[in-house]
Amino acid sequence: MSDQTKSRRRKRAPRGAEAHHRQIDYTELRSPFPIMKAFSDDRIAAIHTAALNLLETAGIKVLLPEARQILKSAGASVDDESQMVRIGREIVRAALATAPRRVVMKGGRPERDVTLELGRLVFQPGGGTPHASDRLRGRRPGTGRDFRELVQLTHHFDALQMVSALLEPQDIAPSLRHYFMIEAQLTLMDKSPFVYGRGSPQVRESFEMIRDFRGLSDAAFAAEPWSYTVINTNSPRQIDIPMAQGLIDFARHGQMVIVTPFTLMGAMAPITVAGAMTLSHAEALAAITLNQLALPGAPVLYGTFTSNVDMKSGAPAFGTPEHFTASLVAGQLARHIGLPWRCASGAAGAAADAQAANETQFGLWGCLLSGATVVIHAAGWLEGGLTLGYEKLITDMEVLQMVAELCTPTSAADAELALDALAEVQPGGHFFGCAHTMERYQTQFYQPLVADWSNYGRWQETGSQNATERATGIWQGILAAGKRPGTDPARVAALHAYITRRSAEGGAPPES
Amino acid sequence: MSDQTKSRRRKRAPRGAEAHHRQIDYTELRSPFPIMKAFSDDRIAAIHTAALNLLETAGIKVLLPEARQILKSAGASVDDESQMVRIGREIVRAALATAPRRVVMKGGRPERDVTLELGRLVFQPGGGTPHASDRLRGRRPGTGRDFRELVQLTHHFDALQMVSALLEPQDIAPSLRHYFMIEAQLTLMDKSPFVYGRGSPQVRESFEMIRDFRGLSDAAFAAEPWSYTVINTNSPRQIDIPMAQGLIDFARHGQMVIVTPFTLMGAMAPITVAGAMTLSHAEALAAITLNQLALPGAPVLYGTFTSNVDMKSGAPAFGTPEHFTASLVAGQLARHIGLPWRCASGAAGAAADAQAANETQFGLWGCLLSGATVVIHAAGWLEGGLTLGYEKLITDMEVLQMVAELCTPTSAADAELALDALAEVQPGGHFFGCAHTMERYQTQFYQPLVADWSNYGRWQETGSQNATERATGIWQGILAAGKRPGTDPARVAALHAYITRRSAEGGAPPES
Repeated sequence: MSDQTKSRRRKRAPRGAEAHHRQIDYTELRSPFPIMKAFSDDRIAAIHTAALNLLETAGIKVLLPEARQILKSAGASVDDESQMVRIGREIVRAALATAPRRVVMKGGRPERDVTLELGRLVFQPGGGTPHASDRLRGRRPGTGRDFRELVQLTHHFDALQMVSALLEPQDIAPSLRHYFMIEAQLTLMDKSPFVYGRGSPQVRESFEMIRDFRGLSDAAFAAEPWSYTVINTNSPRQIDIPMAQGLIDFARHGQMVIVTPFTLMGAMAPITVAGAMTLSHAEALAAITLNQLALPGAPVLYGTFTSNVDMKSGAPAFGTPEHFTASLVAGQLARHIGLPWRCASGAAGAAADAQAANETQFGLWGCLLSGATVVIHAAGWLEGGLTLGYEKLITDMEVLQMVAELCTPTSAADAELALDALAEVQPGGHFFGCAHTMERYQTQFYQPLVADWSNYGRWQETGSQNATERATGIWQGILAAGKRPGTDPARVAALHAYITRRSAEGGAPPES
Repeated sequence: MSDQTKSRRRKRAPRGAEAHHRQIDYTELRSPFPIMKAFSDDRIAAIHTAALNLLETAGIKVLLPEARQILKSAGASVDDESQMVRIGREIVRAALATAPRRVVMKGGRPERDVTLELGRLVFQPGGGTPHASDRLRGRRPGTGRDFRELVQLTHHFDALQMVSALLEPQDIAPSLRHYFMIEAQLTLMDKSPFVYGRGSPQVRESFEMIRDFRGLSDAAFAAEPWSYTVINTNSPRQIDIPMAQGLIDFARHGQMVIVTPFTLMGAMAPITVAGAMTLSHAEALAAITLNQLALPGAPVLYGTFTSNVDMKSGAPAFGTPEHFTASLVAGQLARHIGLPWRCASGAAGAAADAQAANETQFGLWGCLLSGATVVIHAAGWLEGGLTLGYEKLITDMEVLQMVAELCTPTSAADAELALDALAEVQPGGHFFGCAHTMERYQTQFYQPLVADWSNYGRWQETGSQNATERATGIWQGILAAGKRPGTDPARVAALHAYITRRSAEGGAPPES
């Protein structure tokens, strides 16, 4: 255990009104959690071998001709008619050898850089939802306004070290949507932006906007990841055109890719954890291989999102024992190949209630005990990803902040044992007033975000609000405060001019 | 990892209507969770030494003369005027040497026996609350009816392997309350009953009722623990009369004691985890010592319940990072002395909402990662123990059942890798209909208790109920089904005759 203790890491504000305001640094977390294994090491090796066999013999369908050509050039067996590509294990092994063990994502300022390697811990809010929901405005198709608000909420919380795709701003034309999403992320947040892989034209323009806003040359932009995307395979065994293009484009521009097969046990993947993870692993290996062939050493993360469906209705479930176990297996496979990796929490429930809270936290512990580097859908994700709930985001943030607290070791130094206080306070007494307490009471404990610890009478007097009801005022307060990152007005103006010009030219339609 | 897999442990009912009903055995759990350490081993040793020093030099106040006499006879330094007892470390070490490493609690039938040793995992519902709460009847002082209902709910769930004190039936006269509580537990449940340590007369009568109802001789009753109690010290450094009497009486009758200091950091214990755990450990060692001096080898469990208070209001908090860390330290101390032990989850929140769900589950993971043998307050505990919530009990049971699922290893055997299915299902296809799925779909996944996985439209159509609202129908259904243990009518009649006779004689008042 590090000798870095809570006492040392606590930053005290200058003397005065806020002299004893407690601040714990949530921006750079190292996981303190032990690793839990679901399978024996030899069975993990067997799954890895089975995945290599699957790619080598059955193969994977790759819809983009350029991607098939790259794989063919590396020695893969390609049938252009069926679009099937059979990738020999030596090709995969070579790609895994060039994939970096450590990636530093660049933020808008150095304090927002995020180091991604095994042992680190990074949280992302829920992402990719078509709908938004809150208690004031109800459930609705996601809009540009929702997207901007969610970027602001992500900016606010240090325990969200990275952003996700958040939600789909459906009121923005698809050919202009990438301008809108990049502009919001660059001006309302100083964390590294997410870029959708929806074809080369949008990706190229997104890179240009980020490059210029950060004041970088082409070479400086390509030298480090200033943005990232998520690549989902189309399970089973398929990589579609925009996803394949993303794997290539991001690599060639030095930007980060998180490869994430989304494999639901019993539906698009085998019904068993071992079978689903064999498929997920094979697909991830294929995508990483294409990415590394496009540029050896390109920043890439391994990833998984494997849960089960209700076999009666086909409805996906999250935060289940099967989801938890699949996360453990994914962590074992990630360590088997040595890469940093992404796992996922999330809730199936429709309401921001006890079920959804329990699902998200249960899934979260699966991620923590599997040694995940990045945990997506850690806050706000409802209905299996169909809705991003504002209140859910707040109540989930309480859990993430408490987990972040656990990442700072607690001191067991002699003074912390309180031997003087223990001898001083007599039976029948209390520790409220003793010197050991007085020295520490203003900064000792985690201060809750939304939890109300008052007794029942006091809770009734203040309106008998449940946590979800109280959360409304919290996200409203954050948005009203309007905390903004420092931005250069000239670069903001240049960004807006770029967007105006490109929009007038018709934008760039997504490709599929 | 054991070769005992989910497939093997699954008990299939006979062919017919229920041919594919899924049943996982939740009655005997072994923890699959890795141990998380908060402090280094040498700092744990330092806390153990500090606790021994505290008992030896500052001492502990023991209000019961008989208890002071027992400790004095063993060599402790006793001041009868101040009631302070200073216990030398050799006396404590001798007591720890006689305390058993393994205790088998006897249930009403062999399937309900519970083995308690390091590595096992046992859950108890919330206990000791003055109030009950549910959505139909609101929050109210606990009654005999509530107590009986909660015994029935405890009987229903296999994942509650032990009962707790549940709630205080305040409408039953204190001098008759032990009759009522023991009768309910013996006739409505076949798990081992909880007996309050409220002075020798009540304890002796409780033992008589249990002995006769189980059809045991005095010797057979004393040979194994057929009941148990919880002994709370009065922190800081005091053992009151009924608690000291309980430590002696239970030992002499061979019944189990769970020693649990209840130390709130910043209030009745030092504000630091290390300080609070030094105090908790010292008090636990003193109580275990008295218990083992009364009968060497008597069944006893180490225990802790250490959380923090809100330093602004003094309100206790649960499921906090500090609570979590204290649990880890308690687990390290328990393994340092080698005893099975009890830890606690629980919620501070007043409502059965997302806050309370998150607090209970966060506290639960602290218990699981600290290797707790018994987890109390794992379901239903609200308001820091002032209320037992019926709906909260149901939503918490979902989490406990999911944890219980994780205790059965998942198979990674060759057949589970689904290699045939992976080769069979082509890109663009799905696994719903393949043989590998068809063979397993009826029993593969955990079936939720209260979670609703239906989509938003369907959820709306069925009333837009949150999990807490749905939970009402579930506990009502369990109570309506009225599942009862098998009982011998003659013994029930004898028990009732005993209670009628003793009640007519005035009962037995609690002692304090």
